[in-house]
Amino acid sequence: MTDIGPSTTIGEIDEDALIALFAPRLPRSDAEILGPGDDAAVLSVDGNLVVSTDVLIENRHFRTEWSSGADVGWRAAMQNLADIDAMGAVPTALQVTLAAPAHTPVQWVLDFADGLREACEPHGVGVVGGDLSGASEICISVTAMGETHGTEPITRADAVDGQVVAVAGPLGGARAGLEQLTRGERIDAESIGLFLRPSPRIGAGLEAALHGATAMMDLSDGLVRDATRMARASEVGIDIESALLPVHDGARKVAVALQLDPRPWALAGGEDHHMLAVFQRESAVPEGWTVVGVTSDAFSGVRVDGEEPTVRGWDHFAG
Amino acid sequence: MTDIGPSTTIGEIDEDALIALFAPRLPRSDAEILGPGDDAAVLSVDGNLVVSTDVLIENRHFRTEWSSGADVGWRAAMQNLADIDAMGAVPTALQVTLAAPAHTPVQWVLDFADGLREACEPHGVGVVGGDLSGASEICISVTAMGETHGTEPITRADAVDGQVVAVAGPLGGARAGLEQLTRGERIDAESIGLFLRPSPRIGAGLEAALHGATAMMDLSDGLVRDATRMARASEVGIDIESALLPVHDGARKVAVALQLDPRPWALAGGEDHHMLAVFQRESAVPEGWTVVGVTSDAFSGVRVDGEEPTVRGWDHFAG
Repeated sequence: MTDIGPSTTIGEIDEDALIALFAPRLPRSDAEILGPGDDAAVLSVDGNLVVSTDVLIENRHFRTEWSSGADVGWRAAMQNLADIDAMGAVPTALQVTLAAPAHTPVQWVLDFADGLREACEPHGVGVVGGDLSGASEICISVTAMGETHGTEPITRADAVDGQVVAVAGPLGGARAGLEQLTRGERIDAESIGLFLRPSPRIGAGLEAALHGATAMMDLSDGLVRDATRMARASEVGIDIESALLPVHDGARKVAVALQLDPRPWALAGGEDHHMLAVFQRESAVPEGWTVVGVTSDAFSGVRVDGEEPTVRGWDHFAG
Repeated sequence: MTDIGPSTTIGEIDEDALIALFAPRLPRSDAEILGPGDDAAVLSVDGNLVVSTDVLIENRHFRTEWSSGADVGWRAAMQNLADIDAMGAVPTALQVTLAAPAHTPVQWVLDFADGLREACEPHGVGVVGGDLSGASEICISVTAMGETHGTEPITRADAVDGQVVAVAGPLGGARAGLEQLTRGERIDAESIGLFLRPSPRIGAGLEAALHGATAMMDLSDGLVRDATRMARASEVGIDIESALLPVHDGARKVAVALQLDPRPWALAGGEDHHMLAVFQRESAVPEGWTVVGVTSDAFSGVRVDGEEPTVRGWDHFAG
């Protein structure tokens, strides 16, 4: 077998050899009955199965100049864990596919496995299977699985008039990180870190479910765009009060340094992955969440301070 | 909204509009509690969950000159259904990601959904979720889920000395189809069809499980390469008798016309996706299966007619 050095590429070793190096670095799932290496994995499921999939494409969802293999692995895992949490369910396992060019260093692929592990292990989540392939650009797909624990899954579709809209964490941090990377500035390390490794509090979704949330989703494409999806699914209007927005401290700092207004980042910046949830009344909102608006049947879609928003979110086909 | 014509590309419409066209064409799962459109889908699972993932990359696993969108959708589904069947489990649902260039016709994407539906509907399998994204080349990832129905999952690892190795269908058909497409010949339409739409008998794996199969996998990378994986996992030798190989009729016909020997196609050609299983004795082999060899602890790995094989299978990183 070839010796693996820092410059060894995946095109220089065979598929089985790469799998043999990759698989032992992956996190193990508490729900695993049979792990990677066979035609399929076998998992125990308590309650119903909750399942979600996201794809990450090089130069669209990440850049290898900015993100290490471990950062990409972290993000691939975390945005899917957030999707399971957004149903009020508990994530248990991932399936991961990685397609990458022959010139990709083996070390990048192993770092990717390490990032998956760093994101998953604190939550008892494991990678139970997947697929590796060649490709012209890096293409990652992660399917996350979880189970309901005594609560009904919380969809986007059940918000009604006169309820309270809240978010579980500060907004605009990842967007401020992206702004710095794009400009080649380094004003606030924390927000750059958040762009590279989104860090929603996994478990906030289950917490919201236990507080009777009527609708929930995670914020992947920005508050306005995602709230518009929720408003459409629930057939209700959502009015956001911009003065209430919990703008991330790092985003404020970066905005001040660049003489910009950070509120558009909080309204339209994607990748924060915090929970957006609707509660029946303000007293039901869990501690640590921030109320940002209300639902109303007086209009449809999203308004910001009573008006049509002038900012939009991220479109994966444009740009 | 833009009118969709035959030349409309996915770069010309927005992500939500594409999803709105795509989702209604997808097959529905009998196990679906909540389908596509939310952060995650919700499924009922009876028994344990069996889960498998495969990736398909343009110009590596398929070519758009040869395969229609529907062919690619069919293959993406079928090779994953075969992986679930290969555990002796029953497939119930798929998660599907499709990343594609902006110039991809919307119609190709809708045809892809139709192919998924054509492959899945006869088996009660549905697409419950997934993700769409832009990319430089078409990259598809499918995660199939299924459930065990009263039998233990059949792995690759439990074959022992003195057992009988059998396959559930004729071999080399897909390889003969590929040969014709590569040469621009059209000698046998059926084998071309099998390359474009692999058609293993889904349910053969459950049948093998009910007949007490000790080890099983589906043939995706060719008999020699896949049997080598099984031999390694089971720590047993597998001796294949080439005279017993059920060479696909179309492969024979193509080989005759091209003055070639079809047996290397049956030994090393990939993409047939028929089941390869080991049974305790010949009388346990289900009707319609063909015995192709025996297990032995006198050697390790795979031998063909008692000798080291001179053919290998498909490596996704080479070539």
